[in-house]
Amino acid sequence: MSRYWSDVVHRLTPYVPGEQPRIEGLVKLNTNECPYGPSEAVLAAMAAQTGEALRLYPDPQSSALREAIAAHHGLKPAQVFVGNGSDEVLAHAFLALLKHEAPLLHPDISYSFYPVYAKLYGIQTRELPLAEDFGIRVDDYLAIAREGGAGGIIFPNPNAPTGMVLPRAEIRRLLEGVPDAPVVIDEAYVDFGGESAAALIDHYPQLLVTRTLSKSRALAGLRVGYALGDPALIEALIRVKDSFNSYPLDRVAVAGAVASMQDEAWFAATCARIVATRERLGAALADRGFQVLPSAANFVFARHPGHAGAALAAALREHKVLVRQFPRPTRIADFLRISVGTEAQTDVLLAALDRVLAAA
Amino acid sequence: MSRYWSDVVHRLTPYVPGEQPRIEGLVKLNTNECPYGPSEAVLAAMAAQTGEALRLYPDPQSSALREAIAAHHGLKPAQVFVGNGSDEVLAHAFLALLKHEAPLLHPDISYSFYPVYAKLYGIQTRELPLAEDFGIRVDDYLAIAREGGAGGIIFPNPNAPTGMVLPRAEIRRLLEGVPDAPVVIDEAYVDFGGESAAALIDHYPQLLVTRTLSKSRALAGLRVGYALGDPALIEALIRVKDSFNSYPLDRVAVAGAVASMQDEAWFAATCARIVATRERLGAALADRGFQVLPSAANFVFARHPGHAGAALAAALREHKVLVRQFPRPTRIADFLRISVGTEAQTDVLLAALDRVLAAA
Repeated sequence: MSRYWSDVVHRLTPYVPGEQPRIEGLVKLNTNECPYGPSEAVLAAMAAQTGEALRLYPDPQSSALREAIAAHHGLKPAQVFVGNGSDEVLAHAFLALLKHEAPLLHPDISYSFYPVYAKLYGIQTRELPLAEDFGIRVDDYLAIAREGGAGGIIFPNPNAPTGMVLPRAEIRRLLEGVPDAPVVIDEAYVDFGGESAAALIDHYPQLLVTRTLSKSRALAGLRVGYALGDPALIEALIRVKDSFNSYPLDRVAVAGAVASMQDEAWFAATCARIVATRERLGAALADRGFQVLPSAANFVFARHPGHAGAALAAALREHKVLVRQFPRPTRIADFLRISVGTEAQTDVLLAALDRVLAAA
Repeated sequence: MSRYWSDVVHRLTPYVPGEQPRIEGLVKLNTNECPYGPSEAVLAAMAAQTGEALRLYPDPQSSALREAIAAHHGLKPAQVFVGNGSDEVLAHAFLALLKHEAPLLHPDISYSFYPVYAKLYGIQTRELPLAEDFGIRVDDYLAIAREGGAGGIIFPNPNAPTGMVLPRAEIRRLLEGVPDAPVVIDEAYVDFGGESAAALIDHYPQLLVTRTLSKSRALAGLRVGYALGDPALIEALIRVKDSFNSYPLDRVAVAGAVASMQDEAWFAATCARIVATRERLGAALADRGFQVLPSAANFVFARHPGHAGAALAAALREHKVLVRQFPRPTRIADFLRISVGTEAQTDVLLAALDRVLAAA
C-alpha cells in the first residue's frame, strides 16, 4: 500500500503462475510445458539472430512471423496478431474487445487469469458453472446472449484445467447464436486433440482464436503467442499494442517462432508423442482408482476418491514430483492437474503415486 | 471501426515509432540505436540459453536480472522492476502510478509516447511548455504541484527529442517540492552524459527512474528495460505486471541482459566512443550553420535557419541517410533529430548534408 499507487492497484488480485522451482532432480509436471526440447531448426534460427543486428529495433509489426503463422493456418497476415506470449495477447484482447456494458461471460472453472485481466481493466464478468460432468454448456451462453446479457464470451478449448474439449460444431452453434458480441476461444491446448476454430474465422467476424507456442511447440521460455481473427478485430489489438509497446517481440524470439511455425514434421511428431503418453497416463491413473476427465490437452485432470487433492500433491512433492492442485473453486480441489511428461517421467510419477497410495 | 471494439479503442492515437526500413545501404540515424553491436559477453550468454531449456517457462520474477541491475546501481533487487523494453515499463508505470485525480504533468516537447499511454488508460494530462531555450523549467512544475495540481510528473532526462539535460540538483529540487505525487524520470539516454537520479532513490519514495538497454547497451533488438524506485513503487508495478503477463522477459533476453549489466568495460568504452562522435557531429553541424541544442544523449537536435526540417529530412533520404523529423509541435518542425552513428556513418551524413545544402 502506498499513497503513490493509482486506485486500480489496490483492487488487483494478481495471477499466480505455477511454481518454477530450482530444485535438482525434480520431475516438473505442474505448468504444462512440453517435456521435449524445441526443434533444432528453431535453435539454429535463434542462433543466427544472436549477433550484431541486436543493436537495431525489431520490426514493430513482426511481419515475418505474421506471414509464417498465416501460411500455417491458411489465413492472411491481416488476420494474425502476435504478442509476448498468449498471456499478453489475451490481456490486449480483454482491453480491446471484451470491455462492454454487458458482462463478459466465462466458465466458473477455467483459466484463472481471466478474472485477473477483468479486474485490471474494470470489466464486469459473469461466471457460468460447468455442467456436472465438467463440460461447457453452450446453451447456457446462448440463453444469456439472447437476452442481451453477453458483452463478450471467453473460454479455453480444450478447457483448462479440465482438459475437456468442445467439438467445432458446438463452437459454430455458439457463434451462430451470438453474432453481436466478440467470442474469444483460447486454444492454448488445441494441438493435442481439439478441432481448431481457426477454420471458422473467414465466416464469423466476432471470433478471435488465441494460440501459444509455449505448449505444443516447446517454447514456453521464448514468450510468443498469437491471435487469429477478422482484420477488424486484429486492428483493435494492434491499436492497443501500439499504445502500449511498439516492439513486444524481440529479434531472436521472432526468428525462433518463424522457424517453429515452419517445422511441421517436428510439430506433428511431438504432438503425437505427447498424446500417446497422455493416453497411457490416463489409463494408468484409472487403473489406480482415479476418476480421469477425458483430456484433449497435454495434461490430465484427475481425482482419487480416497485422497484429498492437496494432501496428494504434497505427498508427491515429497517424492520430488511436482503437479498442480487448485484450492478454488472447492469443486475441483481434489483434482490434480498433471502435465504429460516424457515416458520416463511418467514412470517416476506412477511409481511415486504407488508409494503414496500404499502408504495412506 | 467495428461494433466489437471496446470503447477505448476508438479514442486511441497509437504511437508511431521511427521507420525500420529494409533498404540496402541505408545510413539509419532515425531511431537512436547504438551504431556498434552488443558486447561479445552478451552474445555468448544468449547462445548458452539457446537450447533445450526453452521448453520451460522463464523465472516470472526475472530474479537474476533484477539482482544484476541492483548490483550495477548499488541498490537492492526489491528496488528494481524489469520489463519488455522501457516502453512496457512506462506503460505499467502509467497505469500503476500515474492515474490520479489531478492531471499528470509532462513537457509539451517530450517523448511522444506519454500522451498515448495517457489515452490508453484514461489519464488526464497537462502539458507544460519548455522554456524558450528548450529547457525544462522545474519552477513551473513546482508552482502547479504547490497548488495541488500535480497527480504525477514525468519527463525524460536528458529530454527527448531535445537531448538537453537537467542536473541532478534540479531533480532533487523538484522532488523536495513535490513530496506527494509520483515523479518518473525517464533516463533512456542518461548514460551519454546525464547525472542519474538513481542515486536519489533511497531518499525520495515518490521517485521512479526508468532505463532501457536499447541505447547505451546496444540491445534495442532484445527488448529489455527497467525501473528503479522505492520498494512500494516497485510493488505497484509488479502487481500490474502480474495482472497482465506473468513472464514478459524470455530466457534468452534475461541471459543477455544479465551479461550486459555485468560488462562494465564494454559499456564505458562504447558510451565514450558515442559521446566523442556526438561532439564531433555537433561541431560539424554548427560549422554548417545549424543551431545545435546542447546534447547529453546519443543524438543531436539541430535546425538550419535556411531550410525547412521536412525538406531537409526528405533530401537526406534521397541520399540514403535516414534522420527523424517531428511535424508536431510546429515549434520543433524545423529540427532534425540525428542519431549518433559510427565515425564512417557521420562522414556519410556530413557529405550528404553538404550536397543537399549546396544544391538548395
